[in-house]
Amino acid sequence: MDKPSLLILNIKQLQAIRTSFILVHGGGKLASALSEKIGIQTHMINGRRITDAQTLDIVTMVYAGLINKKIVARMQAIGKNAIGICGADLHLITATKRSRTPIDFGFVGDIKDINTEQLRLLIDNGCVPVFSSITHDGKGQLLNTNADTIASALAISLGNLYNVTLCYCFEKNGVLLNPDDEQSVIAELSEEKYEMLKAAGNIYSGMIPKLDNAFAAFSQDISSVQIMHALQLQHFINSGYAGTKLVK
Amino acid sequence: MDKPSLLILNIKQLQAIRTSFILVHGGGKLASALSEKIGIQTHMINGRRITDAQTLDIVTMVYAGLINKKIVARMQAIGKNAIGICGADLHLITATKRSRTPIDFGFVGDIKDINTEQLRLLIDNGCVPVFSSITHDGKGQLLNTNADTIASALAISLGNLYNVTLCYCFEKNGVLLNPDDEQSVIAELSEEKYEMLKAAGNIYSGMIPKLDNAFAAFSQDISSVQIMHALQLQHFINSGYAGTKLVK
Repeated sequence: MDKPSLLILNIKQLQAIRTSFILVHGGGKLASALSEKIGIQTHMINGRRITDAQTLDIVTMVYAGLINKKIVARMQAIGKNAIGICGADLHLITATKRSRTPIDFGFVGDIKDINTEQLRLLIDNGCVPVFSSITHDGKGQLLNTNADTIASALAISLGNLYNVTLCYCFEKNGVLLNPDDEQSVIAELSEEKYEMLKAAGNIYSGMIPKLDNAFAAFSQDISSVQIMHALQLQHFINSGYAGTKLVK
Repeated sequence: MDKPSLLILNIKQLQAIRTSFILVHGGGKLASALSEKIGIQTHMINGRRITDAQTLDIVTMVYAGLINKKIVARMQAIGKNAIGICGADLHLITATKRSRTPIDFGFVGDIKDINTEQLRLLIDNGCVPVFSSITHDGKGQLLNTNADTIASALAISLGNLYNVTLCYCFEKNGVLLNPDDEQSVIAELSEEKYEMLKAAGNIYSGMIPKLDNAFAAFSQDISSVQIMHALQLQHFINSGYAGTKLVK
């Protein structure tokens, strides 16, 4: 979602969706670009952003402001009644500030609670919730929270009420056996196979948190979990096939 | 709303409100400060921001992201179920890009339509809509729109459904006879008196667009229009008196 040139294309695909849906986005590349412009250094540990007070302002601006509202405006233009929100809105996602040990990530939140009732009101009113990856602690503090984790937590919380398909869209064709070969997509991945590949060092390190989130959701009440290139979404909606499908 | 030190104090006052309400905010000072940090010059004509594409990104980040979500998190902390939105969300406020003549203001929108039905759903569900002053054209384009005008248009559109009080909160004690004397508040102002004072050059130029918006709303179905210092809001809620009251 943080490549402006692809945003329109990505959004257009959503027109094919005929059911209720939720969109969750981050925007790390644009946040890093804005940080650089302002002269604030970006610090990452294990792919996670160290979020001091200034960086929290930046991700709140970029995720909840710029990217979120651009997506919403584009969705309205294709007739999807989007509402751009973050976890603080309607008290939808409450998180706890992560402990300072072993690593002080700053204003980063781990999800504590999803307000399924309020979320259901939005969905059942025909709205399309578009979540930026910002949550709050319920005491007035915004917190930066991983978008993949939010998607997984939302899917789990809604699994009791709806038949949920969870799609992770990113810039690879799926889970790859060889990260340099976009054709090496693993079409079906079980948790057993995942653990074997991971132990053998055959899963690209950047994929591990995403897959851990994906399997966490899949082990719950989620009908289907799919990991695919963002531009395959429409193909997936129409055919039911794209990228990597998690299997039991 | 763009003085971080006052934000908590401003929000705390809202706890006194016992009815449904809507909050509308801008954040011009913070937008100008961010522009300066990034090295983008701020151009204003008659107190209105010239909004080129880069400036639109900045106001979207600052208004719809940073300020909006900080307000929402603070409101949740005092038990008000806020939802931070802009005009693109739920197609709530559609605007038309202003004509390039006589002055090309760039991506600035004049309000065309308020989606009262969707707004009513939020209010009747017990939510508190918090609007940042960004609208859209319905075709995918966000537009920068004056917050005072949004407040006035929302009040007018809801005047048929609810008993509406419109409060303009700013950094002065009300409409002043002498802009340098905070004690010279005009307690009651009729349109006739306003026109007389304006003709005599006794209304501070910065107040004129605000008062024009205020009288536009008051001439419609709005029960009461009040112009006051932001920190007088709680006093007004409790006593019914503060700043300047428009009268027939």
